[in-house]
Amino acid sequence: MQTIWDKRYARRVGRMQSSIIREILKWSSLPDVISFAGGLPAPEVFPVKEFERACSLVLSEAGPASLQYSPTEGFIPLREMIREFSAGYGIHAEVDEIQITSGSQQALDLLGRLFIDPGDKVVVESPTYLGALQAWNIYGAEYLTVPMDEHGMRTDRLPAVLEQKPKFIYVLPNFQNPSGVTLSLERRQELVELAARYEVPIIEDDPYSQLRYEGEHMPPVLAVDAETRGGESNVIYLSTFSKLLAPGIRLAWVIASQEIIRRIVQAKQGADLHTATFNQMIAYEVGRDGFLERHIELIRKIYGERRDVMLRAMDEHFPENVRWTHPHGGMFLWVILPEGVDAYELLPKAVDLKVAYVPGGPFHSDGSGKNTLRLNFSNAAPEMIREGIARLGALLKREL
Amino acid sequence: MQTIWDKRYARRVGRMQSSIIREILKWSSLPDVISFAGGLPAPEVFPVKEFERACSLVLSEAGPASLQYSPTEGFIPLREMIREFSAGYGIHAEVDEIQITSGSQQALDLLGRLFIDPGDKVVVESPTYLGALQAWNIYGAEYLTVPMDEHGMRTDRLPAVLEQKPKFIYVLPNFQNPSGVTLSLERRQELVELAARYEVPIIEDDPYSQLRYEGEHMPPVLAVDAETRGGESNVIYLSTFSKLLAPGIRLAWVIASQEIIRRIVQAKQGADLHTATFNQMIAYEVGRDGFLERHIELIRKIYGERRDVMLRAMDEHFPENVRWTHPHGGMFLWVILPEGVDAYELLPKAVDLKVAYVPGGPFHSDGSGKNTLRLNFSNAAPEMIREGIARLGALLKREL
Repeated sequence: MQTIWDKRYARRVGRMQSSIIREILKWSSLPDVISFAGGLPAPEVFPVKEFERACSLVLSEAGPASLQYSPTEGFIPLREMIREFSAGYGIHAEVDEIQITSGSQQALDLLGRLFIDPGDKVVVESPTYLGALQAWNIYGAEYLTVPMDEHGMRTDRLPAVLEQKPKFIYVLPNFQNPSGVTLSLERRQELVELAARYEVPIIEDDPYSQLRYEGEHMPPVLAVDAETRGGESNVIYLSTFSKLLAPGIRLAWVIASQEIIRRIVQAKQGADLHTATFNQMIAYEVGRDGFLERHIELIRKIYGERRDVMLRAMDEHFPENVRWTHPHGGMFLWVILPEGVDAYELLPKAVDLKVAYVPGGPFHSDGSGKNTLRLNFSNAAPEMIREGIARLGALLKREL
Repeated sequence: MQTIWDKRYARRVGRMQSSIIREILKWSSLPDVISFAGGLPAPEVFPVKEFERACSLVLSEAGPASLQYSPTEGFIPLREMIREFSAGYGIHAEVDEIQITSGSQQALDLLGRLFIDPGDKVVVESPTYLGALQAWNIYGAEYLTVPMDEHGMRTDRLPAVLEQKPKFIYVLPNFQNPSGVTLSLERRQELVELAARYEVPIIEDDPYSQLRYEGEHMPPVLAVDAETRGGESNVIYLSTFSKLLAPGIRLAWVIASQEIIRRIVQAKQGADLHTATFNQMIAYEVGRDGFLERHIELIRKIYGERRDVMLRAMDEHFPENVRWTHPHGGMFLWVILPEGVDAYELLPKAVDLKVAYVPGGPFHSDGSGKNTLRLNFSNAAPEMIREGIARLGALLKREL
């Protein structure tokens, strides 16, 4: 009842709506519910033993330094490891072009802080990652949406929105959350050409590109852009250890020009001083000497199987008037119900049948997408996926 | 050379000046320099063995759950531990009135985000904690300053600034950073009475109260306020494990009403989703069963000795026209040079003599304090403190 405070919330607080997704996640954690709702990695792939070894090593060798304050930019050996890792898939950066953040969510927040004034327009895919909308709503962003199809963002629709002078374009080119769709190489090229022509820079959010289960790796938008302009790039690139090692250590990174990194450092000083020293040292010890690359192979195998199990079960159990994506990687499938069906209204009935998903509406900044839903295939074990999809299929056959 | 981005920084970025302090800290880390400049805890008191034991235990018992995503509010056993710990010094809160943050810096940022609109006035002590100014500048805060004396904030000067309808009052009542001064009990009472009369709420930042080396513990401003209003309080209270366990794990907490915590949770979701699960579990395992309280006794002993060594050395070496505070706790001493002397200009000469401090100017939001400087006594070993103060004394005798 702190009424004195109540009158004092900043105007921008009105823009922070409580996350519907989080409410749904509470539902989906009810006992016996098979949940495809979350975006959780499979806990059984976390390299627990390697973390244990790394903790002992860091505490015995670095000792107190691992528990002390440290520079905002991040632990240099970890940034060096990220530099080498990124070079392995086409991104050539220097260590001082790499900034450690407390999860990618913090990177989104810091970029919003640096670049978004109230009323600024930001181009997003429709649907897009909800966490980005959450991060940028409070800075007063307004969204220009570009529809997607099975090849990703419809770049033919970009010129019309770029005419409206947005601050930047936000794109998740690989196995997008939520749609699972990947931006084709042709469209990557179109994207960077249009961005250059209209002088609108790009934020590339790439948590999943290394989790590919079929097809060939595609060059990051940053790499495509750098190639067209001889090394420099107007792309700010984000990635994270959340899906490659573990999310509970909250470690991610930004790759950008030194000038932008310098600004991010300033913003991060005010936000949390620096990301936990200990976690950075641990992640380095776990990931070094090729472990990260070997571990990704394991994740690919397990998640790839789960994707296949889910796709097969959907073929078997889902009615014919339902469509879905066939993602080549990542953690999510996207389901499109017939027009007029509301996935949000359907959810309580699904939970009655002990299965949960996330309705697609909140991923659309323009209020569309009511007949869509997102399914996560990384978290549940194969037999649970089969059972959950059977339950969901029974519901859809009954209700549609 | 990302010129496309360069034109796109948000207006508020202009308010994020690079931290002078951080520049000075780089200087002070030169070889052979005895630095009183940082705000670092003594690394030799970090409970490294206990961290090692806790890491093993958490990874073997909680296992993958310690590496998974977790709720924004924080790990419940840790919040329960904080509840009991706080009750030990006069703060009676429920677990759902306690929010875990990624260091106190994040708490300051989230509160700025919730409460500060551009142009809003905030009451701060002069001098005040630089990190708060850094956090709030980007939200467009303007500052109303209240001078301090040896009993803390001059509450007789408060009515004049409260007339100007500030959003809130920011106070560090115990062994303030940078001045080392403690707010007297009488002034705590005056503060909460005036705040209630003018309907201006309070943020109490309290990283140091448990590090008391002489005198009696004083009730937190929150407790004084709660007593006058029968349990409820208009105070938002911040504290941290940075000085009690270790700063490199980035763990702190906010105590406030459930309504305010709910808003902080929303803001934190957009900022970094949640504080690292692993770190919260580790801190709980390290701190539980009375270890935190026993460890604080050890810190008190070591820091108390260092404070005494520094004060004795200053008595011996400093010229008569220099004054300084005699803090009863915390990590900092405050030195007042004669009027007209500029501590910032003096610093390069100090570094030539291989000793460093932080000039007091940046701690003043109103541009005053040029003749002041801050000395940290927690980080250096006693013999280093004696030597450093002798060097600084020689400089002051020569230059003043």
